[in-house]
Amino acid sequence: MSESNSYEIHLKSRPDGMPTQANFECVAVPIPEAGEGEFLVKNEWMSVDPYMRGRMKDADSYVPPFALGEVMEGGCVGRILHSNHSDFSEGDYVLSNQGWRDHWVGNGQGVLKVDIDQAPASSYLSVLGMTGMTAYVGLLEIGALKAGETVFVSAASGAVGSIVCQIAKIKGCRVIASSGSKSKIEWLKQKAGVDEAINYREVDDLSAKLRELCPDGIDVYFDNVGGDHLEAAIDQMNEFGRIACCGAISGYNDTNPSPGPSNLFKIIGKRLRVQGFIVRDHQALQPQFAKDMSEWIQSGKITWEETVSEGIENAPQAFISLFEGDKMGKALVKL
Amino acid sequence: MSESNSYEIHLKSRPDGMPTQANFECVAVPIPEAGEGEFLVKNEWMSVDPYMRGRMKDADSYVPPFALGEVMEGGCVGRILHSNHSDFSEGDYVLSNQGWRDHWVGNGQGVLKVDIDQAPASSYLSVLGMTGMTAYVGLLEIGALKAGETVFVSAASGAVGSIVCQIAKIKGCRVIASSGSKSKIEWLKQKAGVDEAINYREVDDLSAKLRELCPDGIDVYFDNVGGDHLEAAIDQMNEFGRIACCGAISGYNDTNPSPGPSNLFKIIGKRLRVQGFIVRDHQALQPQFAKDMSEWIQSGKITWEETVSEGIENAPQAFISLFEGDKMGKALVKL
Repeated sequence: MSESNSYEIHLKSRPDGMPTQANFECVAVPIPEAGEGEFLVKNEWMSVDPYMRGRMKDADSYVPPFALGEVMEGGCVGRILHSNHSDFSEGDYVLSNQGWRDHWVGNGQGVLKVDIDQAPASSYLSVLGMTGMTAYVGLLEIGALKAGETVFVSAASGAVGSIVCQIAKIKGCRVIASSGSKSKIEWLKQKAGVDEAINYREVDDLSAKLRELCPDGIDVYFDNVGGDHLEAAIDQMNEFGRIACCGAISGYNDTNPSPGPSNLFKIIGKRLRVQGFIVRDHQALQPQFAKDMSEWIQSGKITWEETVSEGIENAPQAFISLFEGDKMGKALVKL
Repeated sequence: MSESNSYEIHLKSRPDGMPTQANFECVAVPIPEAGEGEFLVKNEWMSVDPYMRGRMKDADSYVPPFALGEVMEGGCVGRILHSNHSDFSEGDYVLSNQGWRDHWVGNGQGVLKVDIDQAPASSYLSVLGMTGMTAYVGLLEIGALKAGETVFVSAASGAVGSIVCQIAKIKGCRVIASSGSKSKIEWLKQKAGVDEAINYREVDDLSAKLRELCPDGIDVYFDNVGGDHLEAAIDQMNEFGRIACCGAISGYNDTNPSPGPSNLFKIIGKRLRVQGFIVRDHQALQPQFAKDMSEWIQSGKITWEETVSEGIENAPQAFISLFEGDKMGKALVKL
């Protein structure tokens, strides 16, 4: 890869099922130049997130699909190399949605300055960024969590789940976490401080396991996976329980959608509230989130993990790995 | 049947799948006597409701199961034949949960006097009673209906659905109704005034039909049936749509629960709120309901149908018929 070029990742073809390297193309382009009122950014960190799988489909969704043959986009933090903009200076760090590329030129729109002396640049894409706020909004606003309640979290060692577990503990709740490997279970118990952790790959009957671990039922289920986890949770939910639907990663790569839980009728008798949400609808909570999360980090109440890949050319594999269950915490690419 | 006896219906055995006559027994008992501070009631109307199917199972639910070999219970309106209670007089009409029997003795607990000069006795079990209030609470409180929205109602010619359709019209909404026969479709269009009515038995692809009839999507789905109707509704729901889960009659008699919708992941992207409810949790809305519904009835804005069976011995068949789809409006038994 040449130093005089910038590289970016294009969507070459739409995946059928699990995405593969063949769906992506790493393309060399000249480093762009900043015009009047613009600035040039060199990305240092970019985020890969499960929701991007939805944008790879040619289907209506809450975000438009990625275009074939075009550069993709996503969260990133970069450093300004050169600025012709009065509000931005060389050396400033900015958070934007211009990921999946090395360099880009901006005019300030959709761009937020971040202070990397206060927190590491990467944390603005993880615990202090969209991921952390998704956990915060889903658990406290959608899940309407109350102290003393029992919370079940799926994909609990993931970017969002790992923060959900810790916020729930801070709020004085009992936390049951599900994840897919011995080392993740260990981390959840030792670092995130959950009360019980289930390795779902080693459990035959998830509903029975939940019943055993939640003798008083579940009040809030933070759902990152859908499918069998959702069904098992519904079985154990208490009356007036809340299910915050954040993700359904178990089905993102299905070519034929799997049937849903066969126990949805329990939503009625138990008076459950099952609610989907997208973090960007809740921007009003951002200042409160930033204040709370910074305090929790400073007081050592929240810890977080990042799984880091190096180099733009490895971004596709970092993304694919999201669905292979072999990462901890937030998946990031260091550019 | 002897005039000197009272008759009551006992649960003889728990149904496996669809209930049959063999699950019930009509038992003769002596007419009870009212002691000090008590009164004797002769029931004139009793209600049969789909939710009772749940109480025939030996399973935890929001109401305890009916006991084998014991008289069942349910909504009824009766006339006081004799009273030793200072607040109740001979000739008073009372609403209670002492259905499935001719006579009973009460002390006033769980009993509400009703005025049959204001409205027919049977209406306190239908449009002015639990059924009407279920429609009111589900649509306005759980569904949070707003003027100008599009509402989809399943089992729309049933006891609850038929009232939901009309409240939605009163509130200035577009109403799409689903029902299972030509005569019901006719009633929904001519009497309930819905905008479109679907005979789901004549439709191959309910989702496609809904897409055709709801070009602007669905804002509120009032779900009485679950299953394929729920799946089709989710497909057509607008962002921030609400699904009020009132019943899932399509599955009440399943011996093996059917799989749920395969499109639940859309709850996230569309930010849907799917919420189960039971009318008795919303007693605070009763005065407002009674006021609104009485006004709507007096001004001719609400019409309702009752399917009436005669005689306590025919109550089991009236109940079984709920699941055979051959009734209009509220199913009642005249005793």
